[in-house]
Amino acid sequence: MTHGVGRSAQEIAVARAGLSTVLEPRDLTGHLVLAALGPCAAWEVISGRRGVTGAEHDRLEKTVREHGAAMQTGVARAAARWKTRAAGIDPAADLARAERIGIWQCTPEDDDWPDGLRDLGLQQPVCLWGRGQRYRLSAIGAATVAVVGSRDCSSYGRTVTFDLAGGLATRGWTVISGGAYGVDEAAHRAALAAGTAGVPTVAVMAGGVDRLYPRGNQELLHEIVDRGLVLSEAAPGTMPARFRFLDRNRLIAALATAALVTESRWRSGAQSTAHHANDLSRPVGAVPGSVQSATSAGCHRLIREGAAVLVTDIDDFLALAGPLGAQPESDKGHQTEIFDGLDETDKHLADALPVTSGATVDSLAKVAGLPVGAVLGGLRRLERAGLAIDRGGVWVRPRRR
Amino acid sequence: MTHGVGRSAQEIAVARAGLSTVLEPRDLTGHLVLAALGPCAAWEVISGRRGVTGAEHDRLEKTVREHGAAMQTGVARAAARWKTRAAGIDPAADLARAERIGIWQCTPEDDDWPDGLRDLGLQQPVCLWGRGQRYRLSAIGAATVAVVGSRDCSSYGRTVTFDLAGGLATRGWTVISGGAYGVDEAAHRAALAAGTAGVPTVAVMAGGVDRLYPRGNQELLHEIVDRGLVLSEAAPGTMPARFRFLDRNRLIAALATAALVTESRWRSGAQSTAHHANDLSRPVGAVPGSVQSATSAGCHRLIREGAAVLVTDIDDFLALAGPLGAQPESDKGHQTEIFDGLDETDKHLADALPVTSGATVDSLAKVAGLPVGAVLGGLRRLERAGLAIDRGGVWVRPRRR
Repeated sequence: MTHGVGRSAQEIAVARAGLSTVLEPRDLTGHLVLAALGPCAAWEVISGRRGVTGAEHDRLEKTVREHGAAMQTGVARAAARWKTRAAGIDPAADLARAERIGIWQCTPEDDDWPDGLRDLGLQQPVCLWGRGQRYRLSAIGAATVAVVGSRDCSSYGRTVTFDLAGGLATRGWTVISGGAYGVDEAAHRAALAAGTAGVPTVAVMAGGVDRLYPRGNQELLHEIVDRGLVLSEAAPGTMPARFRFLDRNRLIAALATAALVTESRWRSGAQSTAHHANDLSRPVGAVPGSVQSATSAGCHRLIREGAAVLVTDIDDFLALAGPLGAQPESDKGHQTEIFDGLDETDKHLADALPVTSGATVDSLAKVAGLPVGAVLGGLRRLERAGLAIDRGGVWVRPRRR
Repeated sequence: MTHGVGRSAQEIAVARAGLSTVLEPRDLTGHLVLAALGPCAAWEVISGRRGVTGAEHDRLEKTVREHGAAMQTGVARAAARWKTRAAGIDPAADLARAERIGIWQCTPEDDDWPDGLRDLGLQQPVCLWGRGQRYRLSAIGAATVAVVGSRDCSSYGRTVTFDLAGGLATRGWTVISGGAYGVDEAAHRAALAAGTAGVPTVAVMAGGVDRLYPRGNQELLHEIVDRGLVLSEAAPGTMPARFRFLDRNRLIAALATAALVTESRWRSGAQSTAHHANDLSRPVGAVPGSVQSATSAGCHRLIREGAAVLVTDIDDFLALAGPLGAQPESDKGHQTEIFDGLDETDKHLADALPVTSGATVDSLAKVAGLPVGAVLGGLRRLERAGLAIDRGGVWVRPRRR
């Protein structure tokens, strides 16, 4: 439910623009106030224009109970902090400036607000700032995969990322990632190269969308603005401070329907994205690699700890995250698959079958130590599976293709 | 419980020698007769010297019920099959001949019968035939790892096998495997090179222990006879027929306390060994590799299907299969491990700490958007973790080592 009741869209936009500058994602007290009072009243309080009314205080208490949350500090103490941060902020002017340079704002009250973000509850961003054709925002969600990993990936990680992100993009999936070098970069490039979806790829920044970071990826990020979307919860002008990346990862996880860690070190942002995805009940896959390579240690850790399912190819990923009826394992085309339909005794019998010189049912029963009846039944099953040929009472095993 | 009551050890040895020639591991009826009547009476019946008495028939029925098993065929029908296989067999002479060429026999009635084999129930071998110092048999079991994988392993698989099998051997583990090229061979060589256990390595053959197969590994297998053990359930002289390898794998799994698949293809004997180990509740580990390498597809499959736990090194394996108190994950020495003790907010704060120019608690509270109290508490935790330094009210982050 929205709290925009009786307020104009413009009032809400301005209020959320201000809140997005003052409220850090971890400011639990501030987000409780926002959830309880709605954006406009919350902005009045948090900007220090006025205090909390008695009625609002009761609503706040109720909200705290609803979320089973504990306020880090009372509103009074938090107010001091907010005041310093809100000093000299003119959200209306900020909004206008953003619009002039082609940056739009999307709020939870808008119809095109990505549903996935609502799963974040109190951690839902105050608003999104974006670059790129805004209508593309509605394309996110149905089949969106967060492809993440380490910045300093190996050539193996780069290849695997390119193959998987590209393969999913050709199947109409939208890729979403950060803007870093390494895996993020490879994922975006693969999606832009192969993408068939309305929006091939989305980059979520830790700083403002006006600061395409890192510099070395500016050209790539500009291409994403042209053909995809660049998003951030941080107001334009915000520096991509180191601590913002951990928070940014929760957005990548929430905007996607599934996450895929293609290569990551023991400790990397990708681990946090994977854990956020778990918290949000999004399926998570991780690609294994050489145990001698430190750049795969993070993926192996996720798989060991049960935080991710081992994924070796597109089929594995679709079996994990794809729509029901996505290609099943058994379509992998491993020709020896056919064996897997047989029970141990049949395999045993198949192995006992001579390739060239034939064998009679009796001799097979003797060699394999099985009753004649079992041998006969088994041979018929093997015959149907193309694993045994009856040459008039003498049975042989077809040569392996 | 043994059924040797009132029979001499020699009688039992002879009976089981005969049974090991006539009864294939899958001859359920035969193994039920053995379980119900004991080796000597069972041999009299199975060799066709006499039929089943009324009392024995009742005991047989009871055994069938106890094992919840269904007889493939009645004893009468099976008897015909047994007769052909038993024709011309002289187990006493076979035993004597075996002894002359240095092959000994071990039966479930012997004190040194490996306990692990009893877990096989009706699938327990009739007896074991062995080469190498018999006293070593007692050394098997406490810390014995089945190291298995594909014959045509890659250099990666060979290296990983050598490292893991060697590392476990130096820690006093006994390695057990087949005699094949590739992973089996690498595991034995590593154990022989590094082994500190009473018996560094054990090879289980699919055919008779007098036929060291494959020929190309004869020298290696002879060295295992000298310093370890070569075992088989197949009577001396038995050809290593293809179908016997699947059955042989259950012995490798049962003799070990844990299994480790170091590199295996989508379908390989190692898969069956891993599944036998699962059925026997032995922990199973599998080593991942490149998703581009077909030789790792089997390991990835086992991990995906939950049939094996991902293992990257000795610590992972010991955490899975070692004695309690074996080195925990956190001893991996990943220096950034220290971060893992901190909650998200502390990490967040650690990231917000400037490296060179210091920051006051107030400025940190403002930058990180956290209440002053939270910042203070967090900084103290970070200080203890060596992640923050207090320079008289001004806090800095220590440079990364």
